[in-house]
Amino acid sequence: MTLTKNRLKDLRELTHRRYRDEEKKFIVEGVRLVQEAVDSDFSVLEAYHTHDLTDQPGGRSLLSRLKEKTGQIYQTTAREMELISETVSFQGILAVVKQKEFSLETILNANNSPGLVVGLDGVSDPGNLGTMIRTCDWFGVTGILLGRNSVELYNPKVVRSTMGGVFHLPIAVNVDLLSTISKAKGMGYRIYVTDLKGETHFDRVRYQARSLIVFGNEAWGVSDQLKELADDRVSVRRYGAAESLNVSVACGVVLSAVHRLYE
Amino acid sequence: MTLTKNRLKDLRELTHRRYRDEEKKFIVEGVRLVQEAVDSDFSVLEAYHTHDLTDQPGGRSLLSRLKEKTGQIYQTTAREMELISETVSFQGILAVVKQKEFSLETILNANNSPGLVVGLDGVSDPGNLGTMIRTCDWFGVTGILLGRNSVELYNPKVVRSTMGGVFHLPIAVNVDLLSTISKAKGMGYRIYVTDLKGETHFDRVRYQARSLIVFGNEAWGVSDQLKELADDRVSVRRYGAAESLNVSVACGVVLSAVHRLYE
Repeated sequence: MTLTKNRLKDLRELTHRRYRDEEKKFIVEGVRLVQEAVDSDFSVLEAYHTHDLTDQPGGRSLLSRLKEKTGQIYQTTAREMELISETVSFQGILAVVKQKEFSLETILNANNSPGLVVGLDGVSDPGNLGTMIRTCDWFGVTGILLGRNSVELYNPKVVRSTMGGVFHLPIAVNVDLLSTISKAKGMGYRIYVTDLKGETHFDRVRYQARSLIVFGNEAWGVSDQLKELADDRVSVRRYGAAESLNVSVACGVVLSAVHRLYE
Repeated sequence: MTLTKNRLKDLRELTHRRYRDEEKKFIVEGVRLVQEAVDSDFSVLEAYHTHDLTDQPGGRSLLSRLKEKTGQIYQTTAREMELISETVSFQGILAVVKQKEFSLETILNANNSPGLVVGLDGVSDPGNLGTMIRTCDWFGVTGILLGRNSVELYNPKVVRSTMGGVFHLPIAVNVDLLSTISKAKGMGYRIYVTDLKGETHFDRVRYQARSLIVFGNEAWGVSDQLKELADDRVSVRRYGAAESLNVSVACGVVLSAVHRLYE
């Protein structure tokens, strides 16, 4: 299909959060991530690719799968796309995907089944948020509550760093963590808050079938109000000289110990 | 002291790896990291700061401590420094620090004492390398062998992401991992290679008093030749849908389980 100036303008607007919020859309780049979008139950609205996409591994089959999902496929030039793309050199394809809303009920799984939920309170670095979603995806987290003081989920750097995780597990955004975690407690969740000064070492924690683990901001951790809701304050013991652990590394360390309960 | 054009030119050259290699110097930015440099036994050669540094928390005491380390302290403007600084807005101070060389003998600790050494084979993302050094620093790793196919240690993004770790533990650079790890084996080290398809789950491993753990490249992991030297191939079991774990997260997960041996 022909790419008009207006369409290119609409697309370029999606590089700004305000328009992503208004339009409830986001941009996904590269063969691997667009493939993840196509394989998911997210709606792929439009796709833009350069003529040499079919030379890339998986490029040709991706295009034919895309045609089943949307009629809005445009051939374009790398130069045009580099005005929109986040990566320095355009990776051959990008897609516009509809944001999907997950209710708190979906995440907390109201029908009393087991749940391993992660709450993110004020995570501010896009790479960290994306990596934490990827890590949650690896360790089988059932859903994520993204607090309203965190970086935006649909920021291109976040989406890229999730490595597809954004399409794999339900993530509720703009969550009021204080009221939601109180509610989760009432639904039988035990609340674990990570805290550099927490009294319980991560590998001594007894996780319950319904567990909700909260990670906080890179500089100041989890907010005091949320800490007060915690049943356990979980730490990772330090053996060396570093002042702190990167929050996405801490997330991996803590989640790696959760499954021992079930083994 | 007065900042001449020639000095500014010399400083700007240190933004290129070639000059860092030749001059054996690197740049450290911001109050926190320069403070770490000053507190370490690295040589601080020069420092450059804006007049308002003394308004920052710790700025004044840092300047007086710096004066004990070097006579080369220059007042400058944010505009001049932003030509050199890696961060978008200059953080008030940067220092030029002498690179320190650590021998393989220092890292492997020839006198038969315990050792927890990490080998890094082809880590290519600066943020990952820095975060791995920070993580090693947290978990009390005794030394790092940085393979010659990895990103440069003194890349400003690496230095920044170490959060001071670069000053806390010995790191040998440009290491020929194959011959060095063979040598370590002869010195009583047990070799653990991380591998997504490894047969030993990370929390089932029995670490020995002299342990050397190898992490690999973001895309293809540890090289096959190194895998053949391994006594154990260590994996982190997957419970969800992600295709892989970020390498610095994997590093944290594996190292978090090492100390159980000693507890």
